[in-house]
Amino acid sequence: MRRMTARPANAHQARLLRLLRDGGAHSRAQLGEEVDLSRSKLAVEVDRLLETGLVVADGLAASRGGRRSHNIRLAPHLRFLGVDIGATSVDVAVTNAELEVLGHITQPMDVREGPVAVFEQVLDMAEKLKASGLAEGFDGAGIGVPGPVRFPEGVPVAPPIMPGWDGFPVREALSQELGCPVMVDNDVNLMAMGEQHAGVARTARDFLCVKIGTGIGCGIVVGSTVYRGTTGSAGDIGHIQVEPDGLPCACGNQGCLEAHFSGSALARDAEQVAREGRSAELAARLAAAGRLSAADVAAAASGGDTAALELIRRGGRHTGQVIAGLVSFFNPGLVVIGGGVTGLGHNLLAAIRTQVYRQSLPLATGNLPIVLGELGPAAGVIGGARLISDHLFSPA
Amino acid sequence: MRRMTARPANAHQARLLRLLRDGGAHSRAQLGEEVDLSRSKLAVEVDRLLETGLVVADGLAASRGGRRSHNIRLAPHLRFLGVDIGATSVDVAVTNAELEVLGHITQPMDVREGPVAVFEQVLDMAEKLKASGLAEGFDGAGIGVPGPVRFPEGVPVAPPIMPGWDGFPVREALSQELGCPVMVDNDVNLMAMGEQHAGVARTARDFLCVKIGTGIGCGIVVGSTVYRGTTGSAGDIGHIQVEPDGLPCACGNQGCLEAHFSGSALARDAEQVAREGRSAELAARLAAAGRLSAADVAAAASGGDTAALELIRRGGRHTGQVIAGLVSFFNPGLVVIGGGVTGLGHNLLAAIRTQVYRQSLPLATGNLPIVLGELGPAAGVIGGARLISDHLFSPA
Repeated sequence: MRRMTARPANAHQARLLRLLRDGGAHSRAQLGEEVDLSRSKLAVEVDRLLETGLVVADGLAASRGGRRSHNIRLAPHLRFLGVDIGATSVDVAVTNAELEVLGHITQPMDVREGPVAVFEQVLDMAEKLKASGLAEGFDGAGIGVPGPVRFPEGVPVAPPIMPGWDGFPVREALSQELGCPVMVDNDVNLMAMGEQHAGVARTARDFLCVKIGTGIGCGIVVGSTVYRGTTGSAGDIGHIQVEPDGLPCACGNQGCLEAHFSGSALARDAEQVAREGRSAELAARLAAAGRLSAADVAAAASGGDTAALELIRRGGRHTGQVIAGLVSFFNPGLVVIGGGVTGLGHNLLAAIRTQVYRQSLPLATGNLPIVLGELGPAAGVIGGARLISDHLFSPA
Repeated sequence: MRRMTARPANAHQARLLRLLRDGGAHSRAQLGEEVDLSRSKLAVEVDRLLETGLVVADGLAASRGGRRSHNIRLAPHLRFLGVDIGATSVDVAVTNAELEVLGHITQPMDVREGPVAVFEQVLDMAEKLKASGLAEGFDGAGIGVPGPVRFPEGVPVAPPIMPGWDGFPVREALSQELGCPVMVDNDVNLMAMGEQHAGVARTARDFLCVKIGTGIGCGIVVGSTVYRGTTGSAGDIGHIQVEPDGLPCACGNQGCLEAHFSGSALARDAEQVAREGRSAELAARLAAAGRLSAADVAAAASGGDTAALELIRRGGRHTGQVIAGLVSFFNPGLVVIGGGVTGLGHNLLAAIRTQVYRQSLPLATGNLPIVLGELGPAAGVIGGARLISDHLFSPA
């Protein structure tokens, strides 16, 4: 089947495509209520979209009196690829044009192997999704990487945990390999877009999405649009200082949030607790596996292990300290917590909330929900599909 | 002379009015280059604006071949009032529609006297400006107050240093007294708008404007527009923690930035230094005046007083610590430092810069200027005029 070649010709068509993406099939009358166009002008734009093949007429709309008309929906054969590259794993999913996940594969992966090896694996996973019959090809792909990205060019810039990726032309290279348009962004921004499209942030205009995985980052959404900053490094909160004379950090400073709490800091601290004999549960897990991860701490804590619980609470306090400052500064309508360590669940959330509600001013926290993300690892891949669809559903 | 009664009828007219405000007189040809309108459509919109009296044809434009045309400019009789209410003083200025300051009065004032007394003084100052022949009346006024504002209604909300102002309908009350439209905002946002319109931030899209006066606040500009947050408290950085077990703050927490550095904290610390005999200069000033202010510290420092210099450096370090976190989070293109304590000048700036460049990641600070504001006390009143003109030069 031919892939998407057309793009919306104007802002009205772009708006119609996004309405159909976010709200599914609409009758012409329903579309008319949502866009500011005369009936005849709307008919012209819809007919043009039908001609391009981007939308189809499909099924009869419910009668509203008068002649029944066909529903309009996005072409059912359109397929987007969402790719979320983490530090230690990669998620690849295929969605339809309404960004519903049709298939989703997760595999372990080490980002430090560099872009060539990682993309070989990603392409292999994409082929598997095709082979399963979910897609004949892709109309576009959105990729997230765990570091800052020069957004217009889709190139990682000085990413601290991604040696070998600095300046690699991700967008250009993957676009050639996949044969479709590609957009690249920071993984945290993808998570924010995913939760905005299909998760807990659906109705939020201005919100923060804090991802705690191997590192810690923050997606910033202003007026329903991701804010990326002047050089694409906005949201890089892992190196905000939480302890004036704290632990040394890989960045060269002392007391950074990431040095005190993140997936890797938590594993390090848990191993120390185990070695010092302060937790029989963690010691047993360390003896069995040779190393510990955030998941071990989560499991120990859910079994009531006090040392594990204290590690989580201390991490939550440090994270909450940084979020408290961001809440005072940014006055968001919602804070979403996501990423690998959300397995730590409500113990972590409670510690973060306590710190924020104690430390930020009441005016900023009065109606501020602080919640876990709803989508888990699907947030990043849905965000990837959203990223490329935002691009493709814009005037050419 | 009759006051402004018309408003732009559509987005094109609004855009034309803002172009004339920001760039002064334009020929029709120049306007055509800046807006995306056909020649005939542009002529229609300009003619309609001429009919409303908002713009006038004035002087012959430079010849560009062919028949010479008249320049178009904003009506010269339009007058805006900018009011910047601080904790201890008030600035009132009158501008023309191009936001040039025609007259500017500053008076001492105590915001704690409450809105009725303060507005009596403001109205009196506005009358003085009228009496001097600069204005026959005002077409609109923009007011800044030193606390959070519920922006759409123009009402201060729980302002910590403004007892008696909580919920006072500033916009409505002043609009009745002045007989013109009024917009109200936080004083820090006004400063940011002033520096954006006529000061050091003229070309910045995403920037922060940190005002250090009696308290400390931050104006946030995203995509050339002030970002106010979900409840209007964005930029409230004075209560971000800088010392985990630091000084008690009026807000009930410990170690807030404002508890350690601000105009009032500096005065307090300077008096302590004087009393402890650590600075002959500050002791002499305290004996003479009975109290000290930031200006005394500035004067002592410029005379080489080491205790005064150390107070400034310590304040700069604390401020820089908070700004470093904001820079990592927000990745701005520019940071402007303004407010009363900019009399501390380059000693303060140097301490702030050192801390930010040391503590934020290189990607965020690589091309980041940190500079003093250019406009001094004029920033707030120009920002007030800009605020109301943005409102009036929007489609009705």
